Amino acid sequence: MDADLQAVLEFLPCRTPALWFEQARTNVPTLLVDHAHCEKKAAGTALSLLFRYVDHPHLLQSLSRLAREELRHFEQVHKLLQDKGIAYKHLSSSRYASGLRERVSRVEPDRLVDTLLTGAIVEARSCERFLGLIKVLPADLAEFYRLLALSEARHFADYLSLAQRYADKPIQPKLEEMLKVEARLVCEPDISFRFHSGPLAENIPTGAG
Amino acid sequence: MDADLQAVLEFLPCRTPALWFEQARTNVPTLLVDHAHCEKKAAGTALSLLFRYVDHPHLLQSLSRLAREELRHFEQVHKLLQDKGIAYKHLSSSRYASGLRERVSRVEPDRLVDTLLTGAIVEARSCERFLGLIKVLPADLAEFYRLLALSEARHFADYLSLAQRYADKPIQPKLEEMLKVEARLVCEPDISFRFHSGPLAENIPTGAG
Repeated sequence: MDADLQAVLEFLPCRTPALWFEQARTNVPTLLVDHAHCEKKAAGTALSLLFRYVDHPHLLQSLSRLAREELRHFEQVHKLLQDKGIAYKHLSSSRYASGLRERVSRVEPDRLVDTLLTGAIVEARSCERFLGLIKVLPADLAEFYRLLALSEARHFADYLSLAQRYADKPIQPKLEEMLKVEARLVCEPDISFRFHSGPLAENIPTGAG
Repeated sequence: MDADLQAVLEFLPCRTPALWFEQARTNVPTLLVDHAHCEKKAAGTALSLLFRYVDHPHLLQSLSRLAREELRHFEQVHKLLQDKGIAYKHLSSSRYASGLRERVSRVEPDRLVDTLLTGAIVEARSCERFLGLIKVLPADLAEFYRLLALSEARHFADYLSLAQRYADKPIQPKLEEMLKVEARLVCEPDISFRFHSGPLAENIPTGAG
């Protein structure tokens, strides 16, 4: 396996439960629509940092490039939706990103570092799910996710390296705390099926939760 | 002259006053810093429309590409600032964008159409100023603005064509109203020198207004 992908899998606290992948296979429209929203939100998060941290030149250049790549992925997923006749519509957000954001400090520079760590975690999880989806989705979608997995692994590495760069103390303790939260968010039963959700709890209808 | 550039100049209600270009020549740091902010804000505006109009596929694809190009320009201007040793810092916004936004309807589809017309006007004015700046700035900056002028002319055409596409009535009356406002904003004396400001009123210090 590619070294970047290996690094992602070693970074994450756990694998996505097999049940989530089974549910992904039978919820392709929701998976793709939510994935399009996630790419757009990822670009939005990067852009918001460009507005806040004008005095961090390296961060500005890195995150602007990253935002461009997220937007290109958004266009690709959105095109896929159109090709498949799947309507792109609003979807409620999963608990995942908000659950991680709750752990972000409100005091600088921790606020920035924690936000960058959140970015690293989200990109790593996306990458891990892309790799798993390759095995359960039809060939055209599998190929699509194979290509995206490598980009996501690069974004993970970029976010992690930015977090290290701007931290004024070792990042490991906070990272471990956030990864514990992340493990619960992806493993415990969830109320709606989403790209970053836990497996849908049984007896809850899928779709627009 | 290139037909796209000609279309921009014919669209605008007036030329930028010569005094603004004279002031640009002597306020290069503020010009470049504000220009970087403008590219970032243009990306932000396009992105905000991606969040609001999920049911307009053509708009999503067009504006996502446009946002990517604005971000690339942001990186280029920001790189130029670094090369020239000019600090990138927060700057108060000029009255220009907020003056135009005041004319945007709060009722759909006019809200969308007026926002797209605002986009067309801002891109057209940027293009006209780029063309004028080529004549007054040092060679390296002149070449930079020559390249950007063509992109900006394309963005103008994209925004105008999107406004026409989503309008449910002729756009000309509202466009004329907005262009009248725009002419005042770029011609009347302003309180701070910015990329989209009017000429700085005499006896007012330049810089961070």
